[in-house]
Amino acid sequence: MATKKRKKTGEAGGPESGGPGSGGVRELLRVPGGERVDLRRFDPRSTPGGPAGKAAALEAVAPMAQRLASLQERLYAASTTGDRRRVLLVLQGMDTSGKGGTVKHVIGAFNPSGCRVKAFKAPTPEEREHPFLWRVAKELPRPGEIGIFDRSHYEDVLIARVRELVPRSRLGRRYAAINRFEKELADDGVTVVKVFLHISYEEQRERLLGRLDDPDKHWKFNRGDIEERAMWPEYRHAYELALERCSSDAAPWYVVPADRKWYRNWAVAQLLLEHLEALAPRYPEGDFDVDECRARLLAT
Amino acid sequence: MATKKRKKTGEAGGPESGGPGSGGVRELLRVPGGERVDLRRFDPRSTPGGPAGKAAALEAVAPMAQRLASLQERLYAASTTGDRRRVLLVLQGMDTSGKGGTVKHVIGAFNPSGCRVKAFKAPTPEEREHPFLWRVAKELPRPGEIGIFDRSHYEDVLIARVRELVPRSRLGRRYAAINRFEKELADDGVTVVKVFLHISYEEQRERLLGRLDDPDKHWKFNRGDIEERAMWPEYRHAYELALERCSSDAAPWYVVPADRKWYRNWAVAQLLLEHLEALAPRYPEGDFDVDECRARLLAT
Repeated sequence: MATKKRKKTGEAGGPESGGPGSGGVRELLRVPGGERVDLRRFDPRSTPGGPAGKAAALEAVAPMAQRLASLQERLYAASTTGDRRRVLLVLQGMDTSGKGGTVKHVIGAFNPSGCRVKAFKAPTPEEREHPFLWRVAKELPRPGEIGIFDRSHYEDVLIARVRELVPRSRLGRRYAAINRFEKELADDGVTVVKVFLHISYEEQRERLLGRLDDPDKHWKFNRGDIEERAMWPEYRHAYELALERCSSDAAPWYVVPADRKWYRNWAVAQLLLEHLEALAPRYPEGDFDVDECRARLLAT
Repeated sequence: MATKKRKKTGEAGGPESGGPGSGGVRELLRVPGGERVDLRRFDPRSTPGGPAGKAAALEAVAPMAQRLASLQERLYAASTTGDRRRVLLVLQGMDTSGKGGTVKHVIGAFNPSGCRVKAFKAPTPEEREHPFLWRVAKELPRPGEIGIFDRSHYEDVLIARVRELVPRSRLGRRYAAINRFEKELADDGVTVVKVFLHISYEEQRERLLGRLDDPDKHWKFNRGDIEERAMWPEYRHAYELALERCSSDAAPWYVVPADRKWYRNWAVAQLLLEHLEALAPRYPEGDFDVDECRARLLAT
């Protein structure tokens, strides 16, 4: 289905994005590790593998939400008998790329009691006294949970690079540290789904202007956003390095074109769905005699 | 409206439940502090203030969900400029009373990034080494958040009383400690909404049997549930004491009849709505010159 739909929209996610017969958006959007990444070759308005348009996407989302919630319940149920598996969705992207909107619309499909959402801001003084992965390790999902990072340890090779917050040599070692860390997570049963929400420079301008035009959105805006925007090429380069150095088999990166919000939401939901379906969590069997328990209950 | 609807269903929530002209379910369901509570006088199948039936309740829920989400966003936005206010929903009730279902259906209306859900289980060895409020204090909502406790510090005067886990004298001091703790929370801007989900002994039997009948629900069942059920009168008494000793002005208790799931969900949503509307959080104003920022953005 993904391949067919992709032909329909006539657009590709990027030069490396899957091929006929490949498995879902996981293959279409995945960044192959170790190869040079040029984000200018990925069209932020494209809709690889997606529905034909906004109406179709909105229609597709309700049944997807049900399947996500059902798989989440199974994953959680399995954890009660020792299954350590869990999912960690890492959301990264330029300002206004829709990290918050994705949490609201996609993660909103799940039962909140099985979700652990963490938005990482500028590190606190205490956090700065520890190695950069320290604060991240504390917020990992427990077995059976869906964890969501709105920003993450990648900030430590993104803004840290662009703003030269650490010496270049230390920065260079961080990519390897991230890969080791994520490999350990995978070995411990964490399915790490790293999503780069890819918007265009023009779309960011429109979204920032939209925030200025609506007084109810002024709280989301601050003057620093304009200064960060001025560093767009530097951020793009930092993202390209993170994508090419840290898209491992254990924890691949996915580039989700995000100029169209309906595609972004659909694609992240679909990515989670494909990963959860691959995990195929099952309800555990009871360790009790059903008939005996029923008889005892009926006697009360 | 609440009063009119209440007449329509012809049922009362309990002997103390509000009166004509009182303000919403907050008044109808509130437990007056300091008075003797007899839970047998509250009908678990009643629907005080609620819609006429299940269909009407389901219809009412969608617009309520929108209002809840909108108020939550305002609360969160206000916190970004120093407003410390937040909400803490405490859910208590016998096994199968629907604490988990309430989180799924009611809290699911909110943006997950502004929610902090914590289910309290039997205390860990580390937790047992600390005063009983220690583990609770760590999980409180931050300013702007909606916190949800699925079970809470009240377990320390419920199961702790029924199972005699602590000496009676220490137990007696806990009620006052809880009242002091919740008063401090209120003084710090926390709106504490304590809900006792009130089901009947018969309804619990049906729900436990339902779990036995469906293999996909076996993971929710354990043999201990039947033993706990045998202590029903003791638990009821423990709840009555908690309700009468800890329904303070700073943090009142609400008894939500919970045999009908549609009423339970409606009532908890309505309670949250009334509290959030009373808070009336507002989007903060921007601290920047809109025209200047717009001009700078348009130049990029």
